[in-house]
Amino acid sequence: MVRVAVDAMGGDNAPGEIVKGCLLALQKSEAVKILLCGKEEILRQLVGQQYPAERLEIVPASEVIETGDVPVVSVRKKKDSSLVVGMKLIREERADAFVSAGNSGAILVGGQVLVGRLPGVERAPFAPLIPTEDGGVTLLLDSGANVDAKAAHLVQFAEMGSLYMEKALGIEKPRVAILNVGVEEEKGNALVKETYPLLKATPGINFIGSIEAREVLHGQADVCVAEAFTGNMVLKAIEGTASTFQHIIKRAAMSNLRSKIGAALLKPALKEALQSFDASRYGGAPMLGLRGLVVKVHGNAKAAEVCNAVLQCETFERQHVLQSIAEAVNVREG
Amino acid sequence: MVRVAVDAMGGDNAPGEIVKGCLLALQKSEAVKILLCGKEEILRQLVGQQYPAERLEIVPASEVIETGDVPVVSVRKKKDSSLVVGMKLIREERADAFVSAGNSGAILVGGQVLVGRLPGVERAPFAPLIPTEDGGVTLLLDSGANVDAKAAHLVQFAEMGSLYMEKALGIEKPRVAILNVGVEEEKGNALVKETYPLLKATPGINFIGSIEAREVLHGQADVCVAEAFTGNMVLKAIEGTASTFQHIIKRAAMSNLRSKIGAALLKPALKEALQSFDASRYGGAPMLGLRGLVVKVHGNAKAAEVCNAVLQCETFERQHVLQSIAEAVNVREG
Repeated sequence: MVRVAVDAMGGDNAPGEIVKGCLLALQKSEAVKILLCGKEEILRQLVGQQYPAERLEIVPASEVIETGDVPVVSVRKKKDSSLVVGMKLIREERADAFVSAGNSGAILVGGQVLVGRLPGVERAPFAPLIPTEDGGVTLLLDSGANVDAKAAHLVQFAEMGSLYMEKALGIEKPRVAILNVGVEEEKGNALVKETYPLLKATPGINFIGSIEAREVLHGQADVCVAEAFTGNMVLKAIEGTASTFQHIIKRAAMSNLRSKIGAALLKPALKEALQSFDASRYGGAPMLGLRGLVVKVHGNAKAAEVCNAVLQCETFERQHVLQSIAEAVNVREG
Repeated sequence: MVRVAVDAMGGDNAPGEIVKGCLLALQKSEAVKILLCGKEEILRQLVGQQYPAERLEIVPASEVIETGDVPVVSVRKKKDSSLVVGMKLIREERADAFVSAGNSGAILVGGQVLVGRLPGVERAPFAPLIPTEDGGVTLLLDSGANVDAKAAHLVQFAEMGSLYMEKALGIEKPRVAILNVGVEEEKGNALVKETYPLLKATPGINFIGSIEAREVLHGQADVCVAEAFTGNMVLKAIEGTASTFQHIIKRAAMSNLRSKIGAALLKPALKEALQSFDASRYGGAPMLGLRGLVVKVHGNAKAAEVCNAVLQCETFERQHVLQSIAEAVNVREG
């Protein structure tokens, strides 16, 4: 049984959609147990009667970390928040994984401070899946806030990302690339130039060289390795541009009667095309290298995405990704 | 008279569209003289008879630097290429500015090596204009290949970018921001943390703090300052995502009869919306801090964009941007 702690109170649609997603996951998989963290009475009402009691436990937590809260402060001060309580369940070995749609910064800080890193792991990268034009995904890590990594950290990112894509997503020999300003081997900043030969020499990964930010969405690599400042920039530039394009299309669609009719006719095909360009069917963004899987789902996640994130934790556990990461890191270090 | 050297042989549509663009610029402005660099006979034929001979000179250059050529090597070896000959005209004080649609890397290398930096300028940033959602533009510098800048370089980028936006584009008190992983003052990597207080203390710029990559397209800043590795990543992530979205829309539009009709009806409004989301009406991407203005236009530029780039050189010269940059940099340094 895979034990998944879920932050029932984090996110725009909490707790309703979060609870719905959990119940859905319990239906879809019999190998999952959920520890639902949050305000007991509210959750008890939402859950109702129709659930497998032996696989759903409500863990009381009286506080909530809000989106606007300062991550470091809230993780320290709101000790009885659903996020802190849920993450501690991993540390106490009462849960294998943790899912939240809450405050991103608090999840990243909590992962480091409350869950803790696996022995041998020097940094725990935030690793969102980016949709690619061919309908696939690529893992972009580190996209978090833990900046100024060293070359050795990037090598661990490559190992962890590769194992994640292989075991959790079933991709054989994932192609690992390093984000760079050009594809020639002599290109790059000091960090990339130092990291490149190390990646080339790392056993067990399929290193294909540099990738430019322009090519990330073309799906030429399964894992894109970057220092967090760079990764975060690329992630947010992609998100920002995608959202801008959606605004532009909407604005054009509403500009006059002709375009309104055109948009209505085009809508189903466009919706379908955009749906294939969406990583949420894989669940959420994992934070790797911790003592349990921590998954961040979008703040506006609905039940389906929460359900996918819970099922993602089951796959992760069943495939022993954690153990593989620990072994890979320690074999090389030892 | 502003003397603009133009690389007639660089770019996908060279020399035809380049020459057309030049002739257009000569018509639009009487204050421009063009030095058209490239294969003499071909250019003489294309130019024909209908041009003001006193304002158009053909400067022979027998070689061409191709898109696939290695920048450093080609700039050194192809001494009689249109790019090298044109850039040297600035160095020889026979031209004030240089425009090319050719090999980007060669333009950046040539700018440093052949044109040379203004006294006091430590790095010459590549500064493309990024279109913003509100129909404006923002200057993203450094987006070039000269990575691992220091804090003092970033301060010069801020000064040069601010002067460019003020004088060449007529924006009053341009808002200058630094690209960062968050907007709070304590966020950032070591370089940003070192640069932030320096920018705050720099006289003559309107520093508004940090900007996330997600916000660049929202037009919250007129100048976005970054180290080149970061700037290049953000620029290319934006370009890559924009191109992916255009592919997705096209694919959706062609998927069945209903969507084809819808797309045909929507097309005019969408085209108009996308046209306002395009920086090429301002000309090309300048490289700042050199002994003359170097402008890179898109490889696929047509006559209109080339014409805008030439006119951009005229404004730059008329507004004495070069002198202002030299003064700003040297006043502070002195």
